[in-house]
Amino acid sequence: MAPVKVFGPAMSTNVARVLVCLEEVGAEYEVVNIDFKALEHKSPEHLARNPFGQIPAFQDGDLLLFESRAISKYVLRKYKTDEVDLLRGGNLVEAAMVDVWAEVDAHTYNPVLSPVVHQCLINPLVRGIPTDEKVVAESLKKLKKVLEVYEVRLSKHNYLAGDFVSFADLNHFPYTFYFMATPHATLFDSYPHVKAWWERIMARPSVKKISVGMVPPKA
Amino acid sequence: MAPVKVFGPAMSTNVARVLVCLEEVGAEYEVVNIDFKALEHKSPEHLARNPFGQIPAFQDGDLLLFESRAISKYVLRKYKTDEVDLLRGGNLVEAAMVDVWAEVDAHTYNPVLSPVVHQCLINPLVRGIPTDEKVVAESLKKLKKVLEVYEVRLSKHNYLAGDFVSFADLNHFPYTFYFMATPHATLFDSYPHVKAWWERIMARPSVKKISVGMVPPKA
Repeated sequence: MAPVKVFGPAMSTNVARVLVCLEEVGAEYEVVNIDFKALEHKSPEHLARNPFGQIPAFQDGDLLLFESRAISKYVLRKYKTDEVDLLRGGNLVEAAMVDVWAEVDAHTYNPVLSPVVHQCLINPLVRGIPTDEKVVAESLKKLKKVLEVYEVRLSKHNYLAGDFVSFADLNHFPYTFYFMATPHATLFDSYPHVKAWWERIMARPSVKKISVGMVPPKA
Repeated sequence: MAPVKVFGPAMSTNVARVLVCLEEVGAEYEVVNIDFKALEHKSPEHLARNPFGQIPAFQDGDLLLFESRAISKYVLRKYKTDEVDLLRGGNLVEAAMVDVWAEVDAHTYNPVLSPVVHQCLINPLVRGIPTDEKVVAESLKKLKKVLEVYEVRLSKHNYLAGDFVSFADLNHFPYTFYFMATPHATLFDSYPHVKAWWERIMARPSVKKISVGMVPPKA
């Protein structure tokens, strides 16, 4: 059987989200780079995969998918085993807790953490735009409030959805990985249970392998 | 069995998302209002339901959930029947298409449509803040690009995930409903397949019933 294909630069956060899931389930896959400088993401070939011209896109035989969280769930469902069940689809309550904390990542955590990554790494080191320190300060203030809630949650359970690792935890990996390359990484030291949780995520073989390809831009 | 409880004002978009799902599956439920003016969403009782102090929250016996999309999925899974299966959990490909277009709502459609609602209705008529016409114009410009993709998709299928109604479609209801009360509602007339899709959604008994409680603010 031909391996599934993931289209997009492997160092992109949304691509990495999918790749970690593929590694967790041990699926065979191929990464097909998309060259943004050559506007390949707006080419007819790529628009056939994702009509919004974004990455990642995904191919499994005749099936084309986009949206990293949707692709990830497809992968986790398709290759689910008794040992690796990161969506907990068979358990109504556990599946709901996975969904709750995956949505918290998308709508609460990521919107306050990702601007720090954009302002401290991507703007100055990739786009040549100066860091807006006001945006950084406001985001960090909001992020502290969010991390306070995470600290309470992770003092009761080893992982966000409960005492089992899930898609909800892995979802946090790509942006937090780049956040840890900003000058504000030490913020996590104030939240020992969050820090320990992050170290548990980083110790996973899937995460170790994919993070090798995610080189933060350097000054 | 005690009915499940939904905490939050029924006219709120994120509460309405959950209520429409409850109506679709015919579940018994009770709406418990949360009084924002009295800061009830930041009370210890509500923070026990949702540590981020947002609405909606949800209770089913001992189970407490938050995040409207996660609650909705729990409801759709719990009360799923052969006739009403809006997540298509038993079909790997259909479930993936539902996820794709639910994510498109969250990350592509809603971020460009909701600012128009905020600027044209909520700011001037609820908060006493003037409409920022520049934000409206920029959002409408982006929304047109998104609706062009929707028009192509909905010219091929009756619904977003395919030729079956799903959570992906219903997800679009709450914000689009309020958008239709702004001066920019006629934008949809330029996209006949999108317009027909919207009319199919609005004709659903669940949507008709819940929209009665969603009174757009008036000048």
